[in-house]
Amino acid sequence: MIPITESPLTRDGNVLILAYDHGLEHGPTDFTDVPESADPSRTFEAATHPAVTSIAVQKGIAEAYYPSYSDDVDLLMKLNGTSNLWMGEPDSAVNCSVEYAREVGASSVGFTLYGGANHEIEMAEEFREIQENARAHDMPVVMWSYPRGQGLKNDTKSSVIAYASRLALELGADVAKVKYPGSKEGMEQAVRMAGKTNVIMSGGSKRSDRAFLESVKAVMDAGGKGLAVGRNVWQRENPERILDSLERIIYEGASVDTALET
Amino acid sequence: MIPITESPLTRDGNVLILAYDHGLEHGPTDFTDVPESADPSRTFEAATHPAVTSIAVQKGIAEAYYPSYSDDVDLLMKLNGTSNLWMGEPDSAVNCSVEYAREVGASSVGFTLYGGANHEIEMAEEFREIQENARAHDMPVVMWSYPRGQGLKNDTKSSVIAYASRLALELGADVAKVKYPGSKEGMEQAVRMAGKTNVIMSGGSKRSDRAFLESVKAVMDAGGKGLAVGRNVWQRENPERILDSLERIIYEGASVDTALET
Amino acid sequence: MIPITESPLTRDGNVLILAYDHGLEHGPTDFTDVPESADPSRTFEAATHPAVTSIAVQKGIAEAYYPSYSDDVDLLMKLNGTSNLWMGEPDSAVNCSVEYAREVGASSVGFTLYGGANHEIEMAEEFREIQENARAHDMPVVMWSYPRGQGLKNDTKSSVIAYASRLALELGADVAKVKYPGSKEGMEQAVRMAGKTNVIMSGGSKRSDRAFLESVKAVMDAGGKGLAVGRNVWQRENPERILDSLERIIYEGASVDTALET
Amino acid sequence: MIPITESPLTRDGNVLILAYDHGLEHGPTDFTDVPESADPSRTFEAATHPAVTSIAVQKGIAEAYYPSYSDDVDLLMKLNGTSNLWMGEPDSAVNCSVEYAREVGASSVGFTLYGGANHEIEMAEEFREIQENARAHDMPVVMWSYPRGQGLKNDTKSSVIAYASRLALELGADVAKVKYPGSKEGMEQAVRMAGKTNVIMSGGSKRSDRAFLESVKAVMDAGGKGLAVGRNVWQRENPERILDSLERIIYEGASVDTALET
Amino acid sequence: MIPITESPLTRDGNVLILAYDHGLEHGPTDFTDVPESADPSRTFEAATHPAVTSIAVQKGIAEAYYPSYSDDVDLLMKLNGTSNLWMGEPDSAVNCSVEYAREVGASSVGFTLYGGANHEIEMAEEFREIQENARAHDMPVVMWSYPRGQGLKNDTKSSVIAYASRLALELGADVAKVKYPGSKEGMEQAVRMAGKTNVIMSGGSKRSDRAFLESVKAVMDAGGKGLAVGRNVWQRENPERILDSLERIIYEGASVDTALET
Repeated sequence: MIPITESPLTRDGNVLILAYDHGLEHGPTDFTDVPESADPSRTFEAATHPAVTSIAVQKGIAEAYYPSYSDDVDLLMKLNGTSNLWMGEPDSAVNCSVEYAREVGASSVGFTLYGGANHEIEMAEEFREIQENARAHDMPVVMWSYPRGQGLKNDTKSSVIAYASRLALELGADVAKVKYPGSKEGMEQAVRMAGKTNVIMSGGSKRSDRAFLESVKAVMDAGGKGLAVGRNVWQRENPERILDSLERIIYEGASVDTALET
Repeated sequence: MIPITESPLTRDGNVLILAYDHGLEHGPTDFTDVPESADPSRTFEAATHPAVTSIAVQKGIAEAYYPSYSDDVDLLMKLNGTSNLWMGEPDSAVNCSVEYAREVGASSVGFTLYGGANHEIEMAEEFREIQENARAHDMPVVMWSYPRGQGLKNDTKSSVIAYASRLALELGADVAKVKYPGSKEGMEQAVRMAGKTNVIMSGGSKRSDRAFLESVKAVMDAGGKGLAVGRNVWQRENPERILDSLERIIYEGASVDTALET
Repeated sequence: MIPITESPLTRDGNVLILAYDHGLEHGPTDFTDVPESADPSRTFEAATHPAVTSIAVQKGIAEAYYPSYSDDVDLLMKLNGTSNLWMGEPDSAVNCSVEYAREVGASSVGFTLYGGANHEIEMAEEFREIQENARAHDMPVVMWSYPRGQGLKNDTKSSVIAYASRLALELGADVAKVKYPGSKEGMEQAVRMAGKTNVIMSGGSKRSDRAFLESVKAVMDAGGKGLAVGRNVWQRENPERILDSLERIIYEGASVDTALET
Repeated sequence: MIPITESPLTRDGNVLILAYDHGLEHGPTDFTDVPESADPSRTFEAATHPAVTSIAVQKGIAEAYYPSYSDDVDLLMKLNGTSNLWMGEPDSAVNCSVEYAREVGASSVGFTLYGGANHEIEMAEEFREIQENARAHDMPVVMWSYPRGQGLKNDTKSSVIAYASRLALELGADVAKVKYPGSKEGMEQAVRMAGKTNVIMSGGSKRSDRAFLESVKAVMDAGGKGLAVGRNVWQRENPERILDSLERIIYEGASVDTALET
Repeated sequence: MIPITESPLTRDGNVLILAYDHGLEHGPTDFTDVPESADPSRTFEAATHPAVTSIAVQKGIAEAYYPSYSDDVDLLMKLNGTSNLWMGEPDSAVNCSVEYAREVGASSVGFTLYGGANHEIEMAEEFREIQENARAHDMPVVMWSYPRGQGLKNDTKSSVIAYASRLALELGADVAKVKYPGSKEGMEQAVRMAGKTNVIMSGGSKRSDRAFLESVKAVMDAGGKGLAVGRNVWQRENPERILDSLERIIYEGASVDTALET
């Protein structure tokens, strides 16, 4: 763990990552309802919102679109990922090196670890190399810590999320991105288990404004440092409005009601 | 993605790759109807046609024949491939390095990715290395993006082709070579999903002049940048005539009727 | 084997490693009874006790907490580990390099070898590299030598523990951490088989003060050099008291009764 | 492909490799009928015959015997091979590096590729590295191109041999060593498919003088460049006599009858 | 093959390796009958006998005990090995590098190859690297050549042992350590197949003095260069006596009767 409060990944110690790697992970289906969301520029535009600390994308998107936004947006390069076409055991290809992420302008990197998956060992070893390379360049490391695999039926159980955030601490991530365990208490446990590693919530699939913001509020109240959100922003017709609300909750400590009044 | 309009891979921003890796991928059977097509020189000759921006061949063919054509033809080295004798899960051996491709005179490289195949992870990791090496030498990268494998019965469905072109964007290819999804609308979707990555059509097996040219016209109308064509050129008795027609459609925006009148 | 009596891993030739890698290996469940034990600081505090020669943790814990304790605590970096979520054959991911362990301040390293497991070959080869790198920096190597796998039903049988300690000697570990074989005689055999390699006992799950200390006493009487203890220290409400007792037995040769009177 | 007419692998553009890797590939059983054939010196002696352009052996044989013959014999180091004891899927261990082959005095290298085997991908990737290393030292590369594996029942069918010789061209071999497809026509097809890559016949198991020489004559008439022969030379009581005959056919264009009159 | 008569591995061209890697390969059970044999010092003492040319041990034993004997004993480092706990297909972990063996003081190295095992390919490739590294330092290489695996029921059949010794020659070992094929004739065949590679017998499990020495005598009479012996020396109460006998047979050509009279 390195101090990240000086990093562009945080604002006043909190984090709001706008994630847009869904074109790889889920494919075009995620862009169906809001067709213009297929255009990465739209999400890069959204990322200029002051609430957003960094945008998280895959290498190709970063290469093609980041140059136009490098003055206004901070880049977190997601270093692994897999298409939804794949039917094998949970795994994720390392499709970008730390060195190349840096060349493209990333200030931090992201990595998915499927704890409990048959490929956990291999993924943890890939993480070692990435984490140590990132350290050499003082780049914060965000772990998408998603237990998955044999015997893990319900992967948002509090005990599973707590283990997920602990894995991030033990293996040396600076930020643990975990799924919402369904309650503030669950999130508190995850935060406690993560120790000095910062815990943020994974936004998940699109929900109503209120339901989504209430989970964010619970995360902040539980000691979480923010969230990484994708579909709940860019699958909305007006990404800016929800970002306004998120800004109030994450950085100003507003209630959900106040945030919704925006 | 790097700008490729200055690269010899394009002419006025469009692309016509003459592909001739079939001796490896399909074997001698592809040369049966036009026996002289087995001789690489014949296809290199065809590649001197002004409509052709680059020839795509495997390492051995490039080593043996390109030296005689290096003044008149641009070389795209195909870096992986597999024989048709192989009965295993879809995969492709990396049989040439970026560095060696460059020594032989290639200005760009090509790589097949079988999204959804059991070897997708491994292929994506091989692609990472190749793409980053190519970047170091400013060589454009063309991805043969062919979803294949478990659960992919009909691999020219629009949704599959759209995912294929998105994979090329997300992973950092400059050009996505995809199969024709059967309609202009399907191609438009593929182009939209590819964002700044250029989409070209894979020529596929030999068809009638009109059927073939109509698909090319649909690709151009859909915003595609051209095609990579093999059998539809060198399996014809007169490769030059079809190249004349392609030149009209791709670079001059001619209709299929006009192009056929050549 | 290198001489370790000059190393901070020993005190008067004996060893008391305070192990705290359970957050990775077992997960949050180990912290249930004493919730504050989830906080690594508490165990680092305990490690300042003069009885403790080194603390053994995973990379992430070391990075985040060791800087505050580097003056008072010696660091043994555990270089591999696996989560309890994993259902595969016994194996352990190498999640930290020797070089990085050194950068973080470790003076020695630890490695788990599952002799007899289907991954024994691979683990032994990983151990080779780690052991030779550690030698290059004069860092002692502790092997968590735990036979496990097909055909190993009862892995604390004397013959199995004896083989475990011999493996540590043959493969070049300086210290063999083995499970208690259930008797002083069993431990004597393990010590004899380890030759010049130092044998210490693995503390195991929490037991009563007396039962635990009696096994420690038996280890010392059998020629063992101490123990690596985790749960029997930090799962107690008062870690300091049991460390006081351990100090008397390990370094002062006290009886269990005397040690308990502390 | 590099020009090999200046290489010691050829004489007047033709090739006669004396192959002696059978001790590895087949084992001592091949030496049963002519016991003295087990002694590598005997075959090295035979290789001093002016008809022989190079001897092909494995690393160990080269190290031990080549020093005594380096003035009179050219060395082709066979870089992979497998014992006949092995019952697994067709594969071949890379047991010598290009660099070491060169140190031992080899002027060219040989590599077996089992197209169609389950290990084709891996073998083609090993070939890439070897071929590119060989290029760096201007060493010609001979591919033992032997399709084998699932679905390949009759591996001397003309279509299979034609594919085999095409693979050698596509992957960058200078010489394709293929099995005799049973007819001059089959060989002509193989030669046509190989383009600029030189095709030679694999001698195969021992036959009568006439049967063997007739296949050699057919190869030469079909445009082949010669052969790699093992058992048909050193399993004969008098290797020199058959080499005399081969010399007449390969370099002097003699008929089989004339060659037999020697 | 390199000349080894100048190497400390030989005395007057013959070899007597005292092997003591059983603690890894077989475990403590081999030390049951003579408990003091578990102490490596006892075998190092035995190795000071003038009959012994080298001691063969694993890395850890060498590190811990060789420094006290480096003036009087020559070290052959065994570079791979596997515990008897392992239930998988025959394989052997490379647990020491050539470079490190040299640092510890080894003048030669040993490697087990299981020809015919499912891991033969991989082991042969590991052997390549080790053999070539050893060549770079002029260190002789001894191959423990033990065919094993599918279809190899009786692995001391003459034909199997002959193949084993040929593998050592073909792959570049200087010395082939093979099992006794049961007769002088079998050994003669093995020696003939090994060509310039020196053949020595593997001592095997403990037998009576006479039975053991008779096999040694047969090996010498068959042209073998000696033996590598373990249990037949250190499982005896008086290792020195049997070494005296071996000295007479191996270096003085004595009969078994004479040797037994010692």
